[in-house]
Amino acid sequence: MIKVVLLGSGNVAYHLALALKSAEQVELIQRYSRNGNNDAFFDATLPCSNDLQDLKKADIYLLAIKDDNIGSFSKELQHLKGLVVHTSGSVPMKTLHSGLRRGVVYPVQTFTINQAIEFKKVPLVIEAETKDDLQLLQTFAGSLSEQVFELNSNEREKLHVSAVFANNFSNYMFACADALCKEFNLPFDVLRPIILETGKKIQTMDPLEAQTGPARRNDQVIIEKHIGMLQGEKKEIYTLLSNAITKAFQPKD
Amino acid sequence: MIKVVLLGSGNVAYHLALALKSAEQVELIQRYSRNGNNDAFFDATLPCSNDLQDLKKADIYLLAIKDDNIGSFSKELQHLKGLVVHTSGSVPMKTLHSGLRRGVVYPVQTFTINQAIEFKKVPLVIEAETKDDLQLLQTFAGSLSEQVFELNSNEREKLHVSAVFANNFSNYMFACADALCKEFNLPFDVLRPIILETGKKIQTMDPLEAQTGPARRNDQVIIEKHIGMLQGEKKEIYTLLSNAITKAFQPKD
Repeated sequence: MIKVVLLGSGNVAYHLALALKSAEQVELIQRYSRNGNNDAFFDATLPCSNDLQDLKKADIYLLAIKDDNIGSFSKELQHLKGLVVHTSGSVPMKTLHSGLRRGVVYPVQTFTINQAIEFKKVPLVIEAETKDDLQLLQTFAGSLSEQVFELNSNEREKLHVSAVFANNFSNYMFACADALCKEFNLPFDVLRPIILETGKKIQTMDPLEAQTGPARRNDQVIIEKHIGMLQGEKKEIYTLLSNAITKAFQPKD
Repeated sequence: MIKVVLLGSGNVAYHLALALKSAEQVELIQRYSRNGNNDAFFDATLPCSNDLQDLKKADIYLLAIKDDNIGSFSKELQHLKGLVVHTSGSVPMKTLHSGLRRGVVYPVQTFTINQAIEFKKVPLVIEAETKDDLQLLQTFAGSLSEQVFELNSNEREKLHVSAVFANNFSNYMFACADALCKEFNLPFDVLRPIILETGKKIQTMDPLEAQTGPARRNDQVIIEKHIGMLQGEKKEIYTLLSNAITKAFQPKD
């Protein structure tokens, strides 16, 4: 059994705790949180501490804390013998203090409290400094998910910028649609089904193949009409993205 | 029973044909296609014609054809007594020839051949010129879907521009992520689960509430690092959208 101590209190910590508890080769033995108790979202039977000197002996210390705090927080962990692992997409492994056995397990997913997720399908990106630690993370991550990828910090950073487009920017397109509906006095609910289907399509199709709309067809009449209906930032976004889409589908010389 | 003739051969026609056949108060009596036969995707038992003079007497003639062709095609339909309805989000009802009884049934969804869809959940936006025709479309659309909205052409155009953000532009963000993965030699499959989850979240959350990422946190260190990894159009998109997101979350004075 791989013994794990989980450090953190947010969405990621919550979903990790659930996954750790149902993983076969893993035993979640303790949680650390600043307030030292298991708030509503965590199992009350799980030992919880707010004293880093009180952490139990474990194979893996899993940090699910804010990106900005990873470096400074890890300095407080130098007494630990186990592998200290952060879960961030964008923070280099070496941001963890050099006195530690260091590693990364980055779940490529967006987590929401109270929204169940099939963790076995969440891709886990792993990194470690030694062969033995990498082997430990392979076993650990493999018991949580069917999809484990080994990437170095540089590759993970590249994956993270791609994920910003795939997740953060697509979500902002939904936010723009929502804002426009409010401005136009239309119910945003009309657009929720097409938003779900847009994501479903990409499970089996490549995005360029799935692309539709006026810019895909280079329908300048509609594009001009739409631009005339928009202002400020949304006009800028519409113009930039329509040009980019039209260009992507222009016949190459 | 509402008798319907379906005109068209694309994805929308295919999914409409399926929905029409299972709707209780509707009878699909004929299909028109230019080649005059039911290709692989359509039921071979459905009568099919390529001669507009041969169209059967029906209550509704449902046009699922290219936006650009709606006006000119409708001129060929002046002998019809039934209600002639197009299915486009962006074409005004009055683009249909003035000699016709005119209407619109716009399904707010993205359709793919061979990808099943629960049509009862597809929002249908309807419009007609007379009270009687609107009543007919209410009954017709209500037998296909649980969600029917009455909007005029001007409102539908506003909904359509919102849908371009919700569907076309979000899909292009997936396409950018795919292109970046190719450029960085990373497997795009790692991002497919987060793309599905991004759409799922919006079924129960408002998009701004669901927004995450470096721009949401105003994490300028990561943003600068990401911009340094991008070029050309993707750099422009990253900069514009990150600024917009950061601004949306700035405390208002």
